[in-house]
Amino acid sequence: MSVVKPSIPKGTRDFTPLEMIRRNYIMNTIRSIFEKYAYLPIETPSMENLSTLMGKYGEEGDRLIFKILNSGDFLSGVDLKNKTAIQAASLICEKGLRYDLTVPFARFVVQHRNDLTFPFKRYQMQPVWRADRPQKGRYREFYQCDIDVIGSNSLLNEAELIQITDEIFSTFGIDITIKVNNRKILAGIAEIISEPDKITTICTAIDKLDKIGKEQVCRELEDNGLSSLAITQLNPFFELKGSSEEQLQLLSDTFKNCEIGKKGVEEIRSMLAYVSMLPIRSKVELDVTLARGLNYYTGAIFEVKANGVSIGSISGGGRYDDLTGIFGLKNMSGVGISYGAERIYDVLQELDRFPKEIASPVKVLFLNFGKEEELYALDALQKVRASGISCEIYPDNVKIGKQLNYANDKSIPFVVMAGADEIKEHIFTLKNMCSGEQQKISVEEIIAAVKS
Amino acid sequence: MSVVKPSIPKGTRDFTPLEMIRRNYIMNTIRSIFEKYAYLPIETPSMENLSTLMGKYGEEGDRLIFKILNSGDFLSGVDLKNKTAIQAASLICEKGLRYDLTVPFARFVVQHRNDLTFPFKRYQMQPVWRADRPQKGRYREFYQCDIDVIGSNSLLNEAELIQITDEIFSTFGIDITIKVNNRKILAGIAEIISEPDKITTICTAIDKLDKIGKEQVCRELEDNGLSSLAITQLNPFFELKGSSEEQLQLLSDTFKNCEIGKKGVEEIRSMLAYVSMLPIRSKVELDVTLARGLNYYTGAIFEVKANGVSIGSISGGGRYDDLTGIFGLKNMSGVGISYGAERIYDVLQELDRFPKEIASPVKVLFLNFGKEEELYALDALQKVRASGISCEIYPDNVKIGKQLNYANDKSIPFVVMAGADEIKEHIFTLKNMCSGEQQKISVEEIIAAVKS
Repeated sequence: MSVVKPSIPKGTRDFTPLEMIRRNYIMNTIRSIFEKYAYLPIETPSMENLSTLMGKYGEEGDRLIFKILNSGDFLSGVDLKNKTAIQAASLICEKGLRYDLTVPFARFVVQHRNDLTFPFKRYQMQPVWRADRPQKGRYREFYQCDIDVIGSNSLLNEAELIQITDEIFSTFGIDITIKVNNRKILAGIAEIISEPDKITTICTAIDKLDKIGKEQVCRELEDNGLSSLAITQLNPFFELKGSSEEQLQLLSDTFKNCEIGKKGVEEIRSMLAYVSMLPIRSKVELDVTLARGLNYYTGAIFEVKANGVSIGSISGGGRYDDLTGIFGLKNMSGVGISYGAERIYDVLQELDRFPKEIASPVKVLFLNFGKEEELYALDALQKVRASGISCEIYPDNVKIGKQLNYANDKSIPFVVMAGADEIKEHIFTLKNMCSGEQQKISVEEIIAAVKS
Repeated sequence: MSVVKPSIPKGTRDFTPLEMIRRNYIMNTIRSIFEKYAYLPIETPSMENLSTLMGKYGEEGDRLIFKILNSGDFLSGVDLKNKTAIQAASLICEKGLRYDLTVPFARFVVQHRNDLTFPFKRYQMQPVWRADRPQKGRYREFYQCDIDVIGSNSLLNEAELIQITDEIFSTFGIDITIKVNNRKILAGIAEIISEPDKITTICTAIDKLDKIGKEQVCRELEDNGLSSLAITQLNPFFELKGSSEEQLQLLSDTFKNCEIGKKGVEEIRSMLAYVSMLPIRSKVELDVTLARGLNYYTGAIFEVKANGVSIGSISGGGRYDDLTGIFGLKNMSGVGISYGAERIYDVLQELDRFPKEIASPVKVLFLNFGKEEELYALDALQKVRASGISCEIYPDNVKIGKQLNYANDKSIPFVVMAGADEIKEHIFTLKNMCSGEQQKISVEEIIAAVKS
């Protein structure tokens, strides 16, 4: 076999132990909070049928789905002449990699509806794949951590998602602002400016307000057929000021003849009433310009920003009334929120908030001084490990300097040395790798010293 | 959008909450033992370059690798005329899904060799994909849990892997036999029967002994060019009897003029000497007919069987001297073992050994009796949850029967009810869903009752 230069596909990543330990800290923290709030885990296959995925994420999304070549003689009976790439792909690929966790979740709920208990509270933490152009902070394989409640209309669910978000980021020591809005308010605004059919266009455009600014948004709206009167009437909504209650009062006045707008204001008020009764420390604020790009939202929408960090939103979600409809199950309202593991990683890194203690999962290294000493050390190692302490013995009898370097590289805080003298006295020398301090003690004392 | 019938690709699976809870129990148990033995986690991308994967698993393996269609205009400049499926695939696919964790691990070690500390002890628990024909117990996506030590020749590593295997299956309550052999013994046998170059053929054939029987194995060896004299000479090795030491004595005599065979016996003896000094409860037995199909093994090999369960091997591994050579790094001996999560699941299921308590992750459901009662319950819910107990409130005010069914379906052991009477008395009614017993108590007493 010829030698292959080791490399991985563009936009994908290897994770070294230190990165994995940090990622596991993030995932475990999120998972344990999801579980405390009574969400249950599910997993779906990495591959879905392309019929499940295609057409759910827009034309751009269809192109960004990784497609899997059919097995076996995939060309047999297939004519690829004069076909576009997307047509050809559909002839030689039946499966694609999961693009998000939401569509597979909707498919799962419909497929297993007779075995599930509703309201169904599920969490799901799995990688997704997108054939995006790789760039800083954007990968072709990344983890999403989603929770959803499906089969309940109560706004208590929205408040609970806000509380969970608050607890997750408080636990991480990340100060956040949770922005909330409601798609019915946006629908109301579209109605007020006499463009009710353009609600999707309006949401897509104002979703970009932060990125491209007000002028560009207005140009995009104009390009997409909004009248200039409508755009002028839309403008004041970009500049709403004051507390959430003041803004809601203003919207309430504006919507006095607009049912859907009124309903949106009412939903936000009920949701915020719940929020005010829960122990939430983060700022929760109404932002009428929050739109979220995805088409399927119909009620509350959320977005989370880390204060003082120049990174986009680190979490977002909302309520959808008919996500399962495409798979044949009507009247299943749900609400969910998604946390991006890599964004949280980047924020924790930037703020230097990874707990120091997670960097040293292995607590003790027993040095290897040769055959007889090894057996003496092995016996003690069993006792230390049986007490639940992660520890190891250096497997080869090499120079002590090399063994100590190993301990340093792995950030192992304690080293145990036992040579002829120690064996004679039935003791061990425990060295604290941080202070350099050494003491001659028993196995039981080693366990106590490491645990303290 | 037209309605799509919800389904998933053949050979893939959805996991419902109960299945996930059981799978998580398996994965968490294995992970915590790996960590106690000082193995560190890594992860590699789901997709690897096809140049990394192809040619590593034999011709059959090459066909079973799932290939990912190139993004964009994948047909541009490509001529598929008169190409075989495998040639055509190589023109329109650059990436494939991970087929196992071993080749990506070897690639990882070489690629990151300057950032790693050797001996490098890593664990990796990720899904792999194979385009195998789906059948009972065989899936196209399944998890592997691998540990390896690379960069150390010490046989202490082999013994440690046996100890870890013993601890994992003891924890699961699965009684196992660990079969061991050494490729050098097999190489010695090949030398003794004057067919040293046929070692791979011999290993591949006798690996099937359990499945197809001795006669078929001999026929396969004949078909692959072994002389009938050699096959006759091989026969006694199929029937070696006695304790490991008795067999080793016999082999030792047989190998008196065969260096590699002698080395194999010596390695097994040293490994078993370590094993005898470690607290291992499982049976560890030499089986000279254990071969393992994979080509890269060069020293010890292991295979684990669950006693009294008619399921194939549930774990296996061995030592390889040059796995990283194909990626340009020589002299990196390693040894590893792989645990199959689905096989362990099936065994635990068959033996009914899943711990009963994991089925009820949510401990308390607060019933919802309406607006005012909801607020009263919400307040108590916060306190119960803050104590670390997983609990929830039914989000909608629906019929009590429906809410109690929800608790039953989710196996929630306690329900809290609070109506007008309870509010007046500042107490709660706690119902034990198993015994039916009810008591009127405070929030603090609820916490104590649930925790006890």
